[in-house]
Amino acid sequence: MPHIPLPPGIPGIRGPMNYSPETARPMNDLANVLLRTNAHHPDSTLSEGERELIATYVSSQNDCYFCQTIHGAVASHHLGDEDWSLVSAVKCDYRQAPVSEKMKALLTIAGSVQKGGKHVTAQQIDAARLAGATDRDLHDTVLIAAAFCMFNRYVDGLATTAPVDVPDFYRMRAAGVVANGYAASDPG
Amino acid sequence: MPHIPLPPGIPGIRGPMNYSPETARPMNDLANVLLRTNAHHPDSTLSEGERELIATYVSSQNDCYFCQTIHGAVASHHLGDEDWSLVSAVKCDYRQAPVSEKMKALLTIAGSVQKGGKHVTAQQIDAARLAGATDRDLHDTVLIAAAFCMFNRYVDGLATTAPVDVPDFYRMRAAGVVANGYAASDPG
Repeated sequence: MPHIPLPPGIPGIRGPMNYSPETARPMNDLANVLLRTNAHHPDSTLSEGERELIATYVSSQNDCYFCQTIHGAVASHHLGDEDWSLVSAVKCDYRQAPVSEKMKALLTIAGSVQKGGKHVTAQQIDAARLAGATDRDLHDTVLIAAAFCMFNRYVDGLATTAPVDVPDFYRMRAAGVVANGYAASDPG
Repeated sequence: MPHIPLPPGIPGIRGPMNYSPETARPMNDLANVLLRTNAHHPDSTLSEGERELIATYVSSQNDCYFCQTIHGAVASHHLGDEDWSLVSAVKCDYRQAPVSEKMKALLTIAGSVQKGGKHVTAQQIDAARLAGATDRDLHDTVLIAAAFCMFNRYVDGLATTAPVDVPDFYRMRAAGVVANGYAASDPG
């Protein structure tokens, strides 16, 4: 049961976002820039699927069921990962997963940010650059990881509920997010 | 030295916010709603000073020098704490600090969120309600704590620099924030 009364039948982050649209708006704006708009930034090499994969990995490290499942579904949609095997492999052990060396280096940085900002090392940054990451990729990776340390804590700190064992629920919402983005009126 | 090239002479979060105004805008919008606008929400009992105190405490637990110092200075400005003794007491051991029982209960919740969303317990929520916290206070406390887990990681995950041992620098910036709010062009 959520820690404060939230509108019934609205799962995950959508409950508190519905309760507090004034904070939902900038949170969704931030998600849209980081996960969607910046994927088309001239200095970026990170696709929408790769950004969602970073969000999914951090949410998994934070043990946030709703966020790792919806963003995993969005990543899978973008990456053509219909059975979610790629996303599962990244969550299980990204070093052995079939992703690029650049993604492995950026997921290492994201994992450090999840523990705390000071865990990011110059060596991790150098390794990501060697694998092809740009300044913008490094910036966006740190901020995506940091932002999901917020989203995950918002979802679980209020004890929101989420549907479990219904992958099609998340697949359907993912298709909506891919088509329309994150919106305060119907956030992912 | 910051992990990516940032404009010189712009300390703390203002460096990456200057580098990336497209993400700075929603982050500042969120800070303004949580720390300023919602202090005047009809369901809220939390003043701007109390909100900044929660932000300062979480930043301190995350060991983020820039954030705990600037938000501590803003809290002190609001609370008439000219020598920063109240803010220092809260950071050192809020249970013994001269703040209300409601604030102690909310700082306990904020400290749980800092560790991870699932650390918040129903008992902590009940204790805060008994001490006078409203649903809005509980919501805003969780989200302020969650948001500073983002801001702190953004600041330290990019290894930004901050002036140390210059309290007047932070006092001056705090006065600007109190007067004008958090803005992408000149964020706190």
